[in-house]
Amino acid sequence: MSTINDVAERAGVSVTTVSRVLNNRGYISEKTRQNVYRAMQELQYQPNEIARSLLRKQSNLIGLIVPEISHPFFAEFANAVEFHAYQYGCKLLLCNSHRDPDKEREYIEMMRRHRVDGIIMGSHTLEIEDYRNLNNPIVTLDRRIDGIPFVASDNERGGERAARLLIAKGCRKLAHICGNLRLDMLANRRTYAFERTAQESGVWFTTLQTDMNVFDQSEYDRIIAELFEHHPDIDGVFATSDIIAAFVLKWCRKLGKQVPGDIRIVGYDDVRMASWASPGITTIRQPIAEMGRTAVELIRKQMDGEPYEMENVFPIELVERETT
Amino acid sequence: MSTINDVAERAGVSVTTVSRVLNNRGYISEKTRQNVYRAMQELQYQPNEIARSLLRKQSNLIGLIVPEISHPFFAEFANAVEFHAYQYGCKLLLCNSHRDPDKEREYIEMMRRHRVDGIIMGSHTLEIEDYRNLNNPIVTLDRRIDGIPFVASDNERGGERAARLLIAKGCRKLAHICGNLRLDMLANRRTYAFERTAQESGVWFTTLQTDMNVFDQSEYDRIIAELFEHHPDIDGVFATSDIIAAFVLKWCRKLGKQVPGDIRIVGYDDVRMASWASPGITTIRQPIAEMGRTAVELIRKQMDGEPYEMENVFPIELVERETT
Repeated sequence: MSTINDVAERAGVSVTTVSRVLNNRGYISEKTRQNVYRAMQELQYQPNEIARSLLRKQSNLIGLIVPEISHPFFAEFANAVEFHAYQYGCKLLLCNSHRDPDKEREYIEMMRRHRVDGIIMGSHTLEIEDYRNLNNPIVTLDRRIDGIPFVASDNERGGERAARLLIAKGCRKLAHICGNLRLDMLANRRTYAFERTAQESGVWFTTLQTDMNVFDQSEYDRIIAELFEHHPDIDGVFATSDIIAAFVLKWCRKLGKQVPGDIRIVGYDDVRMASWASPGITTIRQPIAEMGRTAVELIRKQMDGEPYEMENVFPIELVERETT
Repeated sequence: MSTINDVAERAGVSVTTVSRVLNNRGYISEKTRQNVYRAMQELQYQPNEIARSLLRKQSNLIGLIVPEISHPFFAEFANAVEFHAYQYGCKLLLCNSHRDPDKEREYIEMMRRHRVDGIIMGSHTLEIEDYRNLNNPIVTLDRRIDGIPFVASDNERGGERAARLLIAKGCRKLAHICGNLRLDMLANRRTYAFERTAQESGVWFTTLQTDMNVFDQSEYDRIIAELFEHHPDIDGVFATSDIIAAFVLKWCRKLGKQVPGDIRIVGYDDVRMASWASPGITTIRQPIAEMGRTAVELIRKQMDGEPYEMENVFPIELVERETT
């Protein structure tokens, strides 16, 4: 195996110069750099992966920041990101932010130090300025920031279809449970579209927001218990995730309400769990696997200087199961 | 900011020598190495994270290989691993093997090149020899290999308790659905203990193995449909995961069987989904979060040369919900 000394000799430069090229440090003329690269190729010099990263200025790492990987939506999204990153020879650095802005910021800083090729941001507690200071290629999930490409489902159409379905099935008193609307997320459009559609149809509705924490089960229980206490005659629920829909289903069972006889339920996402539930949960399907693939492609296109779309909105699909 | 040149000057050595120390290449006397380290400290020389990895021979990366992150058990395990790795300043490299031995081997090779601090192996298609050739600290999940520490739940006691519960509730015709027993996993002990307990109690039972693919939903459907076709009078099912238990529940609903009136169901894992289901799934709980924490600690202890336990078996707990 050839060493850095062999490379230096072949290129007719000092080892220091080779090291500088490797470390991308100090002034090196383009001619010298090319000589060193050529010598490395000719000698099939194999620095280890870390040294190679320095050489290529690529780490073959893609960072993914999600609120919590144990949430089925993010687990299925990460699955797709990992699969497609692997096709490009990239590995996945996985970070849970737990919606903690400090942890999110610290993770972004770590990723910069590790020179990740790009960051897919699926957690959104940070201010827009924190993103602007990044030089890495970046893609956001479900958040629109000028100058940064995003992937999202057609949230607007999703919210509208959920409302239309419940109304068409005869529901006249609707509840909608959504994430916290203070988070600047495109998912909020589900709520606005649902409310607008109900309003235009003259159907009564109420909207309940969860806490900032995406995944607090006791919070879901509290909200749903309160909903049925104050509005026992609710006959249609649109939940912003299949998990919340499953919690509504659980409460209906507890309170002796027939689904879909007394009350109809529509979720969002179509995570696998929606079809495992009994009864199977009717839901608005986002194409999670395709969104993951596109997120990876958007990183690669930015790296390679290829053109790319800024707005990547995926059509939703109504999947009718047994809760409507 | 100080440069590699400043470090060389302060240490009284050439830049090549500093580079050698950084790259851990060529002969360097211990005295020179210490001089270079001291100069770096005094000058607060900050090589980037990748260069620092070379310096410390630590990457601050922990690799986790799972069959599929979208499986709730592995998603929750990864969540815990990420959380505890973060406490140690480590990031998580996540790999899905999809139970493909080639992909598993390739991932392990990649991790070596990236100089990960350690590998947590949650996927087990490889032969024991493939593990032995690794020099990195390694921890396995649910597999016992001489000389490698593992974490697992008390599978034996889990299988026994599931059988005892079903029998105590009056079940007299049991079915057990398990993973593929050709995989060399400690989870297989659930099956052996379940079968032994049923046998000792003189209760009839049948065991059905799933395919190698951990997560083929149509396979679950096929197995369960066949089970009820051949044995419509089964009155107790022990499934090796809560997901499979949810599928059994779905089939019972489809076939008009009352749960727990006509048939009782026990799962394994206690992933969050088990409590979201309606009725809530009775299950054998493995302490997933603690197992993740211990896996990370076992990597750190190996790195730091601290003593550690080889066999880390965690007590299970019976969580009774509505399916028994």
